[in-house]
Amino acid sequence: MTGAALIGVLDYAAVAIFALTGALAASRSQLDIVGFIFVAALTATGGGTLRDIILDRVPLWVSDPAILAVATVAAVVVFLFAHRLESRYRALEWLDAVALAIAVAAGVGVALAAGMGWPVVLVMGMVTGCMGGLMRDVVCNEVPLVLKQGELYVTCAFAGALVAVGLLALGAAGWIALTACAGVTLVLRAGSLALGWRLPVYRSRPPKPESPKR
Amino acid sequence: MTGAALIGVLDYAAVAIFALTGALAASRSQLDIVGFIFVAALTATGGGTLRDIILDRVPLWVSDPAILAVATVAAVVVFLFAHRLESRYRALEWLDAVALAIAVAAGVGVALAAGMGWPVVLVMGMVTGCMGGLMRDVVCNEVPLVLKQGELYVTCAFAGALVAVGLLALGAAGWIALTACAGVTLVLRAGSLALGWRLPVYRSRPPKPESPKR
Amino acid sequence: MTGAALIGVLDYAAVAIFALTGALAASRSQLDIVGFIFVAALTATGGGTLRDIILDRVPLWVSDPAILAVATVAAVVVFLFAHRLESRYRALEWLDAVALAIAVAAGVGVALAAGMGWPVVLVMGMVTGCMGGLMRDVVCNEVPLVLKQGELYVTCAFAGALVAVGLLALGAAGWIALTACAGVTLVLRAGSLALGWRLPVYRSRPPKPESPKR
Repeated sequence: MTGAALIGVLDYAAVAIFALTGALAASRSQLDIVGFIFVAALTATGGGTLRDIILDRVPLWVSDPAILAVATVAAVVVFLFAHRLESRYRALEWLDAVALAIAVAAGVGVALAAGMGWPVVLVMGMVTGCMGGLMRDVVCNEVPLVLKQGELYVTCAFAGALVAVGLLALGAAGWIALTACAGVTLVLRAGSLALGWRLPVYRSRPPKPESPKR
Repeated sequence: MTGAALIGVLDYAAVAIFALTGALAASRSQLDIVGFIFVAALTATGGGTLRDIILDRVPLWVSDPAILAVATVAAVVVFLFAHRLESRYRALEWLDAVALAIAVAAGVGVALAAGMGWPVVLVMGMVTGCMGGLMRDVVCNEVPLVLKQGELYVTCAFAGALVAVGLLALGAAGWIALTACAGVTLVLRAGSLALGWRLPVYRSRPPKPESPKR
Repeated sequence: MTGAALIGVLDYAAVAIFALTGALAASRSQLDIVGFIFVAALTATGGGTLRDIILDRVPLWVSDPAILAVATVAAVVVFLFAHRLESRYRALEWLDAVALAIAVAAGVGVALAAGMGWPVVLVMGMVTGCMGGLMRDVVCNEVPLVLKQGELYVTCAFAGALVAVGLLALGAAGWIALTACAGVTLVLRAGSLALGWRLPVYRSRPPKPESPKR
């Protein structure tokens, strides 16, 4: 499989799975079917669109509107069948973990193909992986997974992208680096969800009363 | 009237009316006059700017700064006279409905002029119509109209854009398609506001206690 | 010092100080070290990236990734030493004031160098100055400084940019205009923080019970 084809497959897969998570968030906000499709499409395309705008590429869904059909189908499926899930939030978290892993690899691949240096490749992996879910959570008023205390999230994306950059520097083939990137991201995120892996968080005195949190 | 001139008029009209809604939201947040202008300009230009960035066009207000003057005047008018309104929120909702209808048509027109296919035309109509108001609501900490349960909002934009695409496919003239687009969007939104029209929303078991909403 | 070099220095300085404020906000949200870096980099580059996307320039950190290293170092410093601060919120406010002043001048300089007219120069000064901090506050769930009642914020950015535009129209050299811009912005913001300077805010009847704030 060529590099470009692999990136295409990764983008499609991330779109489909992120769309499922967007639709699950819409179900928790009790939206109607058009709202499901809206949030699903926003989640599915948000990170990649931001990546493409920064790199001055045409966003994938503008050149290939089939992406929008994928997100729509995912939204309809969730609208019809989400009530069968034992815990929609748990499903959202795990699907999000898979989509995160794939999207980080896709972001890394696109930035490499655009000839970026390694710091920009790292950032683009994180942007593509994290920003769609962040938009979903802000719009649906959920606690952003990106910022949930005591869980690895951005860290997983960072570690995955770092592994890809390191392997490429050592001369590995592109598809090996991208596969390792997705694998490391997924394993770390799964370890955080299932086993509670985490980094130490900042602890200090509580915020002062004169500066209340919103 | 040529297509380009019609799109220009639509953009100006949407800017002025969205700016009024932004200033009304600012009045509900009790900002000062510069805050009024800030929120008015953000609401007025947000959706169109996002559309233009995605389509790689120069945003309207960069090439034609008179747009900013329109938003500023609207903000000053609201700052001086909003206290005369019986209900500022009701005024915000109805002005937003008119601006939504015009902006969807403007977005559809711009995407058509850029030679986009119909799926992208649909999305650009929705982006131009909905995103400025969404930014206003997020910044002013209002419940986003886009996501209010039991009301049609994104659905109206979608239906209006769909009517335009359908009429064009049947060979209608551009100005007829755009007028029908704005009309359908406005009638549906007005029906939702005044008569309670709505789609069935997703209902299921309540969210689990272990996954609290923010 | 040439204009381009001055703009470069201003961008670096604003990045470093905004990164400190982002890391302080991360400390108030008790994130881990990667979360500190994420919020620091978002705050540091958010306003400038938005400016560059609107003006169709390559964002600074894409062409010069050392920017990302600056933000990372600032995040690590805060992670290690923030607990020594008497009031992290107070430090955040004052650092933000300095960064605001520098970033407004940087935004004005970039828009002038891109040959924009004065209304766009004004807006770019405000966008570069205010948007990074707004993103920080939205992501960290703080009350946006941009919108805090009874404080000058957007107004300071506006006044600073206006002074620069006025001085240039009177024939002043670029570096004088940019220095005056930063000075006016900082003095106004400091006066607001320390002495309570403010504009009259909009006051009216309270919002109606049928339209609750989120």
